[in-house]
Amino acid sequence: MMLVLGVDAGGTSSRAVLSTTDGTVVGRGTAGPGNPTAVGGPAAIRSIGTAISAALGNHDPATVLGGVVGLAGAAALTDPAGFGSALGLTCPIDVVGDAVTAFAAGAAAPSGAVLIAGTGAVAARIENWRIGRTADGLGWLLGDEGSGMWLGLQAVRAAARSFTSGGALVTRIAAHTGARSCDELVLWATRQPPKAFAELAPLVCTSDDPVATRITTEAASRLVATLGELGAPDGPVVLAGSLLTSPTPVRDGVLDRLSPAPTSTSRDPAAGAAWLALRRTLDLDAGSAAHLHRTLLG
Amino acid sequence: MMLVLGVDAGGTSSRAVLSTTDGTVVGRGTAGPGNPTAVGGPAAIRSIGTAISAALGNHDPATVLGGVVGLAGAAALTDPAGFGSALGLTCPIDVVGDAVTAFAAGAAAPSGAVLIAGTGAVAARIENWRIGRTADGLGWLLGDEGSGMWLGLQAVRAAARSFTSGGALVTRIAAHTGARSCDELVLWATRQPPKAFAELAPLVCTSDDPVATRITTEAASRLVATLGELGAPDGPVVLAGSLLTSPTPVRDGVLDRLSPAPTSTSRDPAAGAAWLALRRTLDLDAGSAAHLHRTLLG
Repeated sequence: MMLVLGVDAGGTSSRAVLSTTDGTVVGRGTAGPGNPTAVGGPAAIRSIGTAISAALGNHDPATVLGGVVGLAGAAALTDPAGFGSALGLTCPIDVVGDAVTAFAAGAAAPSGAVLIAGTGAVAARIENWRIGRTADGLGWLLGDEGSGMWLGLQAVRAAARSFTSGGALVTRIAAHTGARSCDELVLWATRQPPKAFAELAPLVCTSDDPVATRITTEAASRLVATLGELGAPDGPVVLAGSLLTSPTPVRDGVLDRLSPAPTSTSRDPAAGAAWLALRRTLDLDAGSAAHLHRTLLG
Repeated sequence: MMLVLGVDAGGTSSRAVLSTTDGTVVGRGTAGPGNPTAVGGPAAIRSIGTAISAALGNHDPATVLGGVVGLAGAAALTDPAGFGSALGLTCPIDVVGDAVTAFAAGAAAPSGAVLIAGTGAVAARIENWRIGRTADGLGWLLGDEGSGMWLGLQAVRAAARSFTSGGALVTRIAAHTGARSCDELVLWATRQPPKAFAELAPLVCTSDDPVATRITTEAASRLVATLGELGAPDGPVVLAGSLLTSPTPVRDGVLDRLSPAPTSTSRDPAAGAAWLALRRTLDLDAGSAAHLHRTLLG
């Protein structure tokens, strides 16, 4: 039995999928953050290696024909070519941008576009499984508009602006932050790392306060504008990231604004990476590649 | 000859004005930052003391009947009642919010509203020379909408978003920051203290790039909205802060949106403080107070 590995290495966790050549998942592993920009190259390689070891279990590493690792900040790796050997593998390991694995986890096509909204937000054209032009992805201070961090920051701004007049959103934010006054909320905000604002996103997405609705509507509008900066995509549009793959008002708003454009939802990016590894390793025709895509990600 | 002192203590500098009881300025002094929140109480007192000493020159401190110090962050002073003695003065020294001196520098009325846009932005109702309800002033992260920091941050955001397509504003921001790419601009932005963004405000205000115009228009609109949160003022509206007292497109935009509301422009806040000191020290009737206001600030 010959195998391939797919890895999705993110700022929160690294996940590995081990698949047979007929698309059957035979192992999964999870470990800590694997984004070299966030945690540094050596720590990222350790996390990714831990996730791969867990996915391999008792399988012989020599039976792994190839692997694909999708990660943000691939440019921060000092030796991408030596990535596989650093992980104890002898097979070829390709490193691709996480937008590529997110796209592959939603569509079997070689080209199109992916709109990602999780902690951050970015849109990318995908051209033959490579990242082309991108939009936003500028970080919480300058952009990531419509992302979890953006939603949380807008909610805290709105709450600070109307702290005394109150409302459902203010009550929730006061409870989350422990702030009893506008001044305490301002102080809380200045002491948070930017990612802490993303923790408020679920609270905004599940509130029916009109202010929360205004914020999620604006998030959807900005995400669609970000995607629009890329021009007409040359293939399907894949929605990825927690805000666009789970049933949130942001996802609903994006779908409303994009329809009737053909879109699909990114499923498991690690499985998307495993599918890319199958494609690259097995020299598949289009029909077989689509069949394996349905098997792994359908 | 009996004298009064007025001080405007800000985050950038402290300025003192020494006036005779007939409203003639006989001394001025300037020193470093005098905002206790920004630099700490002891450093603020040192700066304010230096400015006062320079204004006093060879005048006998015993001839000073009273003084008013306007500063932001008065709440951070551990001993406001001991403020005067800490400065080596035996006369009564009143500490008031900087919004009060800014208001007094534009109007002789006891009540009204002041809209301040400099490095930060805040609006305050003034009620019998005390600060009533305020709006915004929430700091660069959550608010200060329409301020110098806000203008600079919006300009960097816009430049990052359209770095490759260029334009006059992008060119100016690239020259100011030294960034040769969008990535370098993002990196520059994350390494700046928030106040560094305010240094970009003049560049935004003097650019006729349509993006710059959109940003200054939005700044004016947000400042007017901030003022609007206070409700109808019970007296004149005074415009204060560098963006609203010099000929900027932000000031023009605010005046367009407020007109035909009666507004006046805050002039020298240290002289406004000196006028408040005259009022409090001399027990003036309204006519004499108005006459001294014209003499000091007309």
